[in-house]
Amino acid sequence: MAFPDTFRPTHLKLTVESPTFWRVTFDNPPVNVIGPQLMSDLKTLLTELESNDTVNVVVFDSADPDFYLAHYDLAADPAAAAALPSATGYAAWADVTVRISKLAAVTISAIRGIARGAGSEFVLATDIRFASLEKAVLGQMEVGFAAVAGGGAGGRLPALVGRGRAFEILLGGNDYDGALAEKYGYVNRAVPDADFEAFVNAYATRVSGWDHRALGEIKSFINKYTRLPDAEFPLHSDAFWSAAGRPEFRTTAERLFDKGLQERGPLEYHLGDDIADIAAIAQD
Amino acid sequence: MAFPDTFRPTHLKLTVESPTFWRVTFDNPPVNVIGPQLMSDLKTLLTELESNDTVNVVVFDSADPDFYLAHYDLAADPAAAAALPSATGYAAWADVTVRISKLAAVTISAIRGIARGAGSEFVLATDIRFASLEKAVLGQMEVGFAAVAGGGAGGRLPALVGRGRAFEILLGGNDYDGALAEKYGYVNRAVPDADFEAFVNAYATRVSGWDHRALGEIKSFINKYTRLPDAEFPLHSDAFWSAAGRPEFRTTAERLFDKGLQERGPLEYHLGDDIADIAAIAQD
Amino acid sequence: MAFPDTFRPTHLKLTVESPTFWRVTFDNPPVNVIGPQLMSDLKTLLTELESNDTVNVVVFDSADPDFYLAHYDLAADPAAAAALPSATGYAAWADVTVRISKLAAVTISAIRGIARGAGSEFVLATDIRFASLEKAVLGQMEVGFAAVAGGGAGGRLPALVGRGRAFEILLGGNDYDGALAEKYGYVNRAVPDADFEAFVNAYATRVSGWDHRALGEIKSFINKYTRLPDAEFPLHSDAFWSAAGRPEFRTTAERLFDKGLQERGPLEYHLGDDIADIAAIAQD
Repeated sequence: MAFPDTFRPTHLKLTVESPTFWRVTFDNPPVNVIGPQLMSDLKTLLTELESNDTVNVVVFDSADPDFYLAHYDLAADPAAAAALPSATGYAAWADVTVRISKLAAVTISAIRGIARGAGSEFVLATDIRFASLEKAVLGQMEVGFAAVAGGGAGGRLPALVGRGRAFEILLGGNDYDGALAEKYGYVNRAVPDADFEAFVNAYATRVSGWDHRALGEIKSFINKYTRLPDAEFPLHSDAFWSAAGRPEFRTTAERLFDKGLQERGPLEYHLGDDIADIAAIAQD
Repeated sequence: MAFPDTFRPTHLKLTVESPTFWRVTFDNPPVNVIGPQLMSDLKTLLTELESNDTVNVVVFDSADPDFYLAHYDLAADPAAAAALPSATGYAAWADVTVRISKLAAVTISAIRGIARGAGSEFVLATDIRFASLEKAVLGQMEVGFAAVAGGGAGGRLPALVGRGRAFEILLGGNDYDGALAEKYGYVNRAVPDADFEAFVNAYATRVSGWDHRALGEIKSFINKYTRLPDAEFPLHSDAFWSAAGRPEFRTTAERLFDKGLQERGPLEYHLGDDIADIAAIAQD
Repeated sequence: MAFPDTFRPTHLKLTVESPTFWRVTFDNPPVNVIGPQLMSDLKTLLTELESNDTVNVVVFDSADPDFYLAHYDLAADPAAAAALPSATGYAAWADVTVRISKLAAVTISAIRGIARGAGSEFVLATDIRFASLEKAVLGQMEVGFAAVAGGGAGGRLPALVGRGRAFEILLGGNDYDGALAEKYGYVNRAVPDADFEAFVNAYATRVSGWDHRALGEIKSFINKYTRLPDAEFPLHSDAFWSAAGRPEFRTTAERLFDKGLQERGPLEYHLGDDIADIAAIAQD
């Protein structure tokens, strides 16, 4: 028995739409945070895809219409992530995001619901981002934790939105809805929610029918001109983890947990706005 | 007698709007494919422009309101293109597109009608792309032939539309209308068709009045920061011609010719959509 | 007594909104040209900000709702600018623009009114550009003077608007209103004028509350990937000053002064359009 039959993920579901079209559905209630188990599932999937020469396209969507991927799991023991195997030798989240960006298969984020922090970084690491016009929300609120985004948002946003808008997104930490994200190039396109699934499926089905080698060659050229060297990404990760060890980060996280972080409630819906009132900053 | 009086093109027309403003009108019925004779005309024009220090601006438009440049001529004998002189030493189409991007004169594509495949690559190689809002259609459907775009689309699109949208355009092979092409930056601007000619002429006339040296200096700076090294482009060309020698490419082309490829009929109008149903892919 | 109390600017006003949020208001009637005194004020401000580790954000706005920064002061004695201290060793305007782009503080242009030529280059050198939808006008009309833009527009525009639109803006020299500037990425966002101040203040206030070190780290990553080496910018400056010494430049400037350049009148409002009828070009 071989992959995908041997794959037993716990925080996502793999659907084989066809031999050349796989669908990955994030399913980690209550708000789809990115913790050690979800990263473990993704790493197993990546290992398979890295040696798979049949799958043309992988669509990543969410079982939760309100939360695509809320953010990194701040309640998890960092040792659990550190204990996961790392093909690149980088920290767990950097390993996942760097490897996704290098697959031969075409990766598409189908964003319905909130994708903040590491959730936004996940979609930035995929090749293509389609968003529900009404339901998608993207943002990088790490600055509210007195931190750099650790999964490479600062390395990937400029190639999508340009220098000025990358500054705005990362320095402000605000939420971006589907329309604004499309205007900026943060997502490829925002599609009315009623048409969203059909649109994504039509694009993915089309790509699933193309020649695997041709897709890989096209990707290689674009990656050659637009992907940063792998070695940049551990710098972002290290900067994040340094910040995570400082009092401002820990105090902000504690205050947020007191108000409902990682629960399915108002704070997670409004985290992009609310973090500015809650954040602790250095008093020097 | 000197150029342009000595110029006897067969597949395009050169109009001297003024000493500093030339207009090139593609005219190769029935659908303006890019074959050896059109490339020969373009090469002669390029050779002149490379040593001309008077012409400030060249507008490229089409005699056919429905077809700007349909695509590369797949019926032509490859030996005819290979026999053309090549200033760069690259294959014929790579020679044309690389040289256009390095002219001192400002080059403007005035896109009314369909520009797919090599037709899209032509406009990507010019400095500026203005499109008719209602009548322009752009696309790179080479992936449907199990091929990389050979004229450098993968090297030029990212600098216009960013990494994510370059992936989408080249991996999907879909058509992009004027409005979407403008939104993505695939064209500079989509102008309502009723205003299109006046708009293009006003911009070109304005540029035709500027100082030739200043235009060249401005172009040099932007090229320094945004143009890939010449040596990248034969890599794309070689990848295309390798694909063109494989069974999937030839079978797809044969099927398309059976359905009306390079004729003025439904297939050429709808090639961006229809190729997905017709394409042959590797059976391995 | 220390900065800002010791700061005695003559052509701008510094308002300390809070210890972490400064506002700089250009005030050099009648049209806010950029001359030696304004550059001197900016250099003093830059020297302070380069060693200041408290100020998080600086908003640059204008006391004149119609003119943000009209352009470089063409009536000033070049010797006065040359006599200003230069931290980089570059010409005065290049020194200002290069240094602004390297500050730890987040710099925001709040553009209401006209920002042409060096005025546009100022906003391009800041991190973020917000524009009044109805009142902002941007443009680089140096080509009308037979010159390259001297403050690095050709080095900064491509990272914001892409290659094709950078060509269009710099080779055409036209005006861009708020809506079009937003569409192109020339500004981050165009906000209806009625909401403009509140929008800018909300964003800046939010950034002013973040951690200073985190902002600096985020900026460093984006700068690493998107800012040209300093040494590029004197090349633009030298090219401008070479052009400024040629007859076409001087004749154009003389004709413009005859028609009201640097006065608060029709020419300055319509300079982007009118320069095409007034410009002198080389007769060779």
